[in-house]
Amino acid sequence: MVEDNEARRGVTRRIYEALKAQILDGTYRPKDRLPSTRALAAELGVSRTTVTTAYEQLLSEGFLESRQGAPSRVALLREDGAAARPATGPSGGVSPAASLRLSRFGAALGDGPSWVPVSRGLIADFRYGDLSAADFPAEPWRRAVNAALRRRRQRLAYDDPAGSADLRAALQAYLWRARGLRCDPGQIIIVNGSQQGLDLAARVLVDPGDRVAIEDPGYVMARRVFCAAGADMVPIAVDEEGLRTALLEGLDDVRLAYVTPSHQFPLGSVLSARRRQELLAWSGRTGAFVIEDDYDGEYRYDIQPIPPLQTMAQAQNVIYLGTISKSLSPMLRLGYLVVPPSLHLAFTAAKQLIDRHSPVLEQEALAAMIASGAYERHIRRSRRSNGRRREALLSALKVELGEQVTISGADAGLHVVVWFERLEKELEGALIERARAAGIGLYPVSPLYADAGQRPDRAGLVMGYAGLEVAEIGKGVAALAEVLRGWGG
Amino acid sequence: MVEDNEARRGVTRRIYEALKAQILDGTYRPKDRLPSTRALAAELGVSRTTVTTAYEQLLSEGFLESRQGAPSRVALLREDGAAARPATGPSGGVSPAASLRLSRFGAALGDGPSWVPVSRGLIADFRYGDLSAADFPAEPWRRAVNAALRRRRQRLAYDDPAGSADLRAALQAYLWRARGLRCDPGQIIIVNGSQQGLDLAARVLVDPGDRVAIEDPGYVMARRVFCAAGADMVPIAVDEEGLRTALLEGLDDVRLAYVTPSHQFPLGSVLSARRRQELLAWSGRTGAFVIEDDYDGEYRYDIQPIPPLQTMAQAQNVIYLGTISKSLSPMLRLGYLVVPPSLHLAFTAAKQLIDRHSPVLEQEALAAMIASGAYERHIRRSRRSNGRRREALLSALKVELGEQVTISGADAGLHVVVWFERLEKELEGALIERARAAGIGLYPVSPLYADAGQRPDRAGLVMGYAGLEVAEIGKGVAALAEVLRGWGG
Repeated sequence: MVEDNEARRGVTRRIYEALKAQILDGTYRPKDRLPSTRALAAELGVSRTTVTTAYEQLLSEGFLESRQGAPSRVALLREDGAAARPATGPSGGVSPAASLRLSRFGAALGDGPSWVPVSRGLIADFRYGDLSAADFPAEPWRRAVNAALRRRRQRLAYDDPAGSADLRAALQAYLWRARGLRCDPGQIIIVNGSQQGLDLAARVLVDPGDRVAIEDPGYVMARRVFCAAGADMVPIAVDEEGLRTALLEGLDDVRLAYVTPSHQFPLGSVLSARRRQELLAWSGRTGAFVIEDDYDGEYRYDIQPIPPLQTMAQAQNVIYLGTISKSLSPMLRLGYLVVPPSLHLAFTAAKQLIDRHSPVLEQEALAAMIASGAYERHIRRSRRSNGRRREALLSALKVELGEQVTISGADAGLHVVVWFERLEKELEGALIERARAAGIGLYPVSPLYADAGQRPDRAGLVMGYAGLEVAEIGKGVAALAEVLRGWGG
Repeated sequence: MVEDNEARRGVTRRIYEALKAQILDGTYRPKDRLPSTRALAAELGVSRTTVTTAYEQLLSEGFLESRQGAPSRVALLREDGAAARPATGPSGGVSPAASLRLSRFGAALGDGPSWVPVSRGLIADFRYGDLSAADFPAEPWRRAVNAALRRRRQRLAYDDPAGSADLRAALQAYLWRARGLRCDPGQIIIVNGSQQGLDLAARVLVDPGDRVAIEDPGYVMARRVFCAAGADMVPIAVDEEGLRTALLEGLDDVRLAYVTPSHQFPLGSVLSARRRQELLAWSGRTGAFVIEDDYDGEYRYDIQPIPPLQTMAQAQNVIYLGTISKSLSPMLRLGYLVVPPSLHLAFTAAKQLIDRHSPVLEQEALAAMIASGAYERHIRRSRRSNGRRREALLSALKVELGEQVTISGADAGLHVVVWFERLEKELEGALIERARAAGIGLYPVSPLYADAGQRPDRAGLVMGYAGLEVAEIGKGVAALAEVLRGWGG
């Protein structure tokens, strides 16, 4: 049994701490006997001295008592060190529940997160936001990550808060090639997914009580960010031309507008040229910032791509937000902001304050994949796969449900909105429940409306298809049709 | 030249967008000739049709004009689409500078980030927070990352906002073995480094105007987080027993206290047992939360490890904060909170709102390294390396500077504070400047004091050694002694 000094000290410490904790949490109670040093040493495979030293420390601190020759027993402890921490506060103290004072922000979140894990055993889960693991470019990504792992560094130190210089250079070129967006790498800030981009913008630009315009219906996690920032929300209706910019007239005190001009979420319209100009004219006149969330700009099927707002004249107040959550994986947590030069310092400082910078490994791997062309090859492949899924969904919906449904937003993106013409909106929840019982994961459109009055009087679903294989899509829609038939719908 | 339809459309689009942007940004000016379609096709290695289609789209949109047979020229554009976005706002609009309205939080950050890249070409850079790349366990990490990359998934979907279940289970066991800290994995929340843990706590617990107690001197990035949250800061002096808890008496309206009990940053004292009890009694009485930042608990040299506050009775308001920035690398951006059960929902919801969850790859790799024992083997090795660096620094300071300096906090951690007995505090900046000119990177203690009145009347440095090799440390201190001699100090 070889133990060098340091290793022995480490083992002694662990034994000491384990026993002490067991005494404090009541595993050993006062007067209980501890195992003999010989027995414990044998059990743990360490020298008896190692165990004895631990016992001696516990004796010296009053956790154990020992009579000459007799095995050690647990001491009756002083009141302040005696008890395990009870779940409901100790007498004399203030119980955690009673003392629970959260900030206004914290209190608004008290219901907890809204996360649900991937469901198992469904015929088809149409959850939006999930991607099929089969589409992931595992081998190019593995190579890119390993290249990043091999990179030689002299020191490990905090990186630039704005993000890896390589990734920002690669993104500059990519945005130019893919989206016609021209910017300086100094305008790019790498964030942990678009969610952090939204939060960063809310913090840097919005004070409690400020008015923030959002699309209605719209992206719930954006609405929640601005609500949590204390903003006074101004929902603006959307139609087939996107945000109804005429409704912005007279709103001169709105601080920020959040929009999805390339593919309105969830309804799918493209903001028309006229409305783009109206939006930017309004922003220029009032000084309001515009967050352009280009969350799925890669996926367009039968239509021409629309250049981002950010590329237009008068876009000086536009903050462009991109993500790889739809193109590569939501688990990688990478996104990027392109901010006007005037905002760069404040955003970078805020990013440093909130988490120093995004993890370097994924940033460097993504930079390499963009630079080698592998990222865009992947996007082209992925666009084709999702095109097939989309066709499968649209044709299954047509065959199985025909005139029972109307579909919005199928030109682009990774989801459609399906309206059930013969089901009142009040039945949306029941439809989802019945479908779930039949093994189909469906998700309601209702929560996406800030103003329930805007909501059409029919049941509606947001049906994501990027996580499903073509065969599953067909089966899922067939099963849904069966549910509707069984319902007498 | 094979081009399938989709690829050709993509190329056409890129050419169209590139030219349009060049027209909009003034690279091509009105009446400028574009390259002939033949020349551009040859230059780009695409078919002439591809280029012609792009030109036609630009013609149809009015960006180009063309007379029969003549090469295309840039059109005189309408006013609203004509000009490149000027850096100072367009006439008729509001200039970015004039319209720059930031939130209170954003305005407080207007000076920009405080990040400085790794310096090159210095004899020795004593920057605190940097680690030597030579210490990084590159091979075990590479294996762990690759195992995580190989993990099979059915779907790519957002993960648990609280973090990977594997990592939380591994950390639970690690914290128990290494720090005697017992918790449920449900109390652990994975964050992007301890900085995000601080920010999360500030947001969930602190409203503008709330009082927050901090150690003085203390960790600047913690102070900045609470300041940015709008807190009213209450600096509490520290001495050789750590935070002077007697000064908390009467502070019944403090919402939160931020402490480094295992190794006070920067002065290095360990919070004494009596003061630990006083701190927790105060917290229990007032309901104030205590953030225990155990930022370098792994590094202790001649002394016994001190169990965290979190392990004590009456710790019901303690939020424990750990990081791998000192044990593995600050570039990985991983840390963790152990929160009281009563805070778990709010913290998890806040984490989801601010960035969904931390990147999964590093989390799974770290979980594997902890589970295999590789993480703790690395920590033991790293503790020995840093022990050698520490000895080299202490012995060089003794030999080269002797009685000119007093050293604080050498028992633990990865830095010491060095006080220059013969240099007034006003000379701290000049010392650092002269040392820099001589190739030594030194960092002042002054900014770490919230209340300048608390600051000893001598120049002081925070000297980090974890980024240096032993030989560099000796050379650096010798060069520093030379600077002092040359100064007549």
